[in-house]
Amino acid sequence: MPSEIINYTGSGLNLRSELYLPAGPGRKSAVFVFPDVFGLGDHVRERAERLAKLGHVALACDIHGEGFLFDDINAAVDKLQPLYDDVAHFRGVGLAALAALAARPDVDPARMASIGFCFGGTMSLELARAGADIKAAVCFHGGLESKAPAAPGGVKARILACIGADDPFIPPAERAEFEAEMRSCGADWQMHLYGNTVHSFTNKQAAKRQLPDVVRYDAAADARSWAAMLELFDEVLVG
Amino acid sequence: MPSEIINYTGSGLNLRSELYLPAGPGRKSAVFVFPDVFGLGDHVRERAERLAKLGHVALACDIHGEGFLFDDINAAVDKLQPLYDDVAHFRGVGLAALAALAARPDVDPARMASIGFCFGGTMSLELARAGADIKAAVCFHGGLESKAPAAPGGVKARILACIGADDPFIPPAERAEFEAEMRSCGADWQMHLYGNTVHSFTNKQAAKRQLPDVVRYDAAADARSWAAMLELFDEVLVG
Repeated sequence: MPSEIINYTGSGLNLRSELYLPAGPGRKSAVFVFPDVFGLGDHVRERAERLAKLGHVALACDIHGEGFLFDDINAAVDKLQPLYDDVAHFRGVGLAALAALAARPDVDPARMASIGFCFGGTMSLELARAGADIKAAVCFHGGLESKAPAAPGGVKARILACIGADDPFIPPAERAEFEAEMRSCGADWQMHLYGNTVHSFTNKQAAKRQLPDVVRYDAAADARSWAAMLELFDEVLVG
Repeated sequence: MPSEIINYTGSGLNLRSELYLPAGPGRKSAVFVFPDVFGLGDHVRERAERLAKLGHVALACDIHGEGFLFDDINAAVDKLQPLYDDVAHFRGVGLAALAALAARPDVDPARMASIGFCFGGTMSLELARAGADIKAAVCFHGGLESKAPAAPGGVKARILACIGADDPFIPPAERAEFEAEMRSCGADWQMHLYGNTVHSFTNKQAAKRQLPDVVRYDAAADARSWAAMLELFDEVLVG
């Protein structure tokens, strides 16, 4: 499926994201797809394409500016903590994607949702914490902690967090803290835990890292979490 | 949809369960539906009927003998602890249902699964812990604790536990213990947590109890958990 580049600015970055458009006329639901800290690569392109085939306008989102994709794992990992620490910066990147899509004549701004993987999963949740006007925010194996937890009544999106029960980056204490945050802010939330599953379970490229106890693709958890997301989209994105 | 009574014995009880048969010839997948401690009533009948309409042979299971259904809540609750304490007894009740269905010429014994609600959810898990030859065991708002935790390698069924995050009967410590058990026995397992959700979230009759902070129907959690079960059945019960 062909995609087109769209350019917009956010948090001082020139963002260059890739848009996948379903066939047919009329205003459509829209889904933002946030990548892991490496940036806009094939994993989110493939997910955006799948979503477009299901009828959603789907945006594979640039998060670093100029469509930058890290090649070196150490450089990417070095970027992670500063990103996590600057909530305003990466919320701005997400909100810019939202504004860019909401302004399009082929998008129904009342039917938008975000999803994301690893760091992008955190971005997806942060859009919801920022009170963005989206119907759902899905996090696949993303950090659940926030430097700016949601305030009571502050979350409009329905939340779905899909987490590997053995993910060493998202320990039980972090899940418990997330539960407490969701409870106190009054969001509509779910958390799905997958056994025998670690980080990056949706990403076939995880094998490259050769750290199967830490990052590992898991076909069952991938399929189950994707189905859970589609079930949520059936609730909120139906026209 | 008409049902038929089938009689069999288990744990010294004359069990009288209700069978819902899908249309069409050939051997079919089969699902046992275990009720809450009140016994075989309309809630599990309706679920069994739904499953039969999807093509599964479905058995709404008697758990007390002679199809007994408690009317008085205090009497039912008084029954609960003795039942929980006697694992061999209620595993026997579940295994008898399994044997009765596995012997039928219209059932494919290689494609059987169990589900259950409240105490029946625990029964469903206990069938799996007993090493029963079923492909999936689903627990809706059932206690996760066991007097006879699964041994390593002892669980054949894929496990799905659907739990209200605010269920006062299934506190976080019990969920954590269940996680540890599932991890140590090496089962294929998932646990889905639903926010703003307490006990009995699949049961519209919960309102009768007039204890909404404790037992309450929740349409979203009901739909989400049912969809998760169907997703699991797609994995394992497809012919």
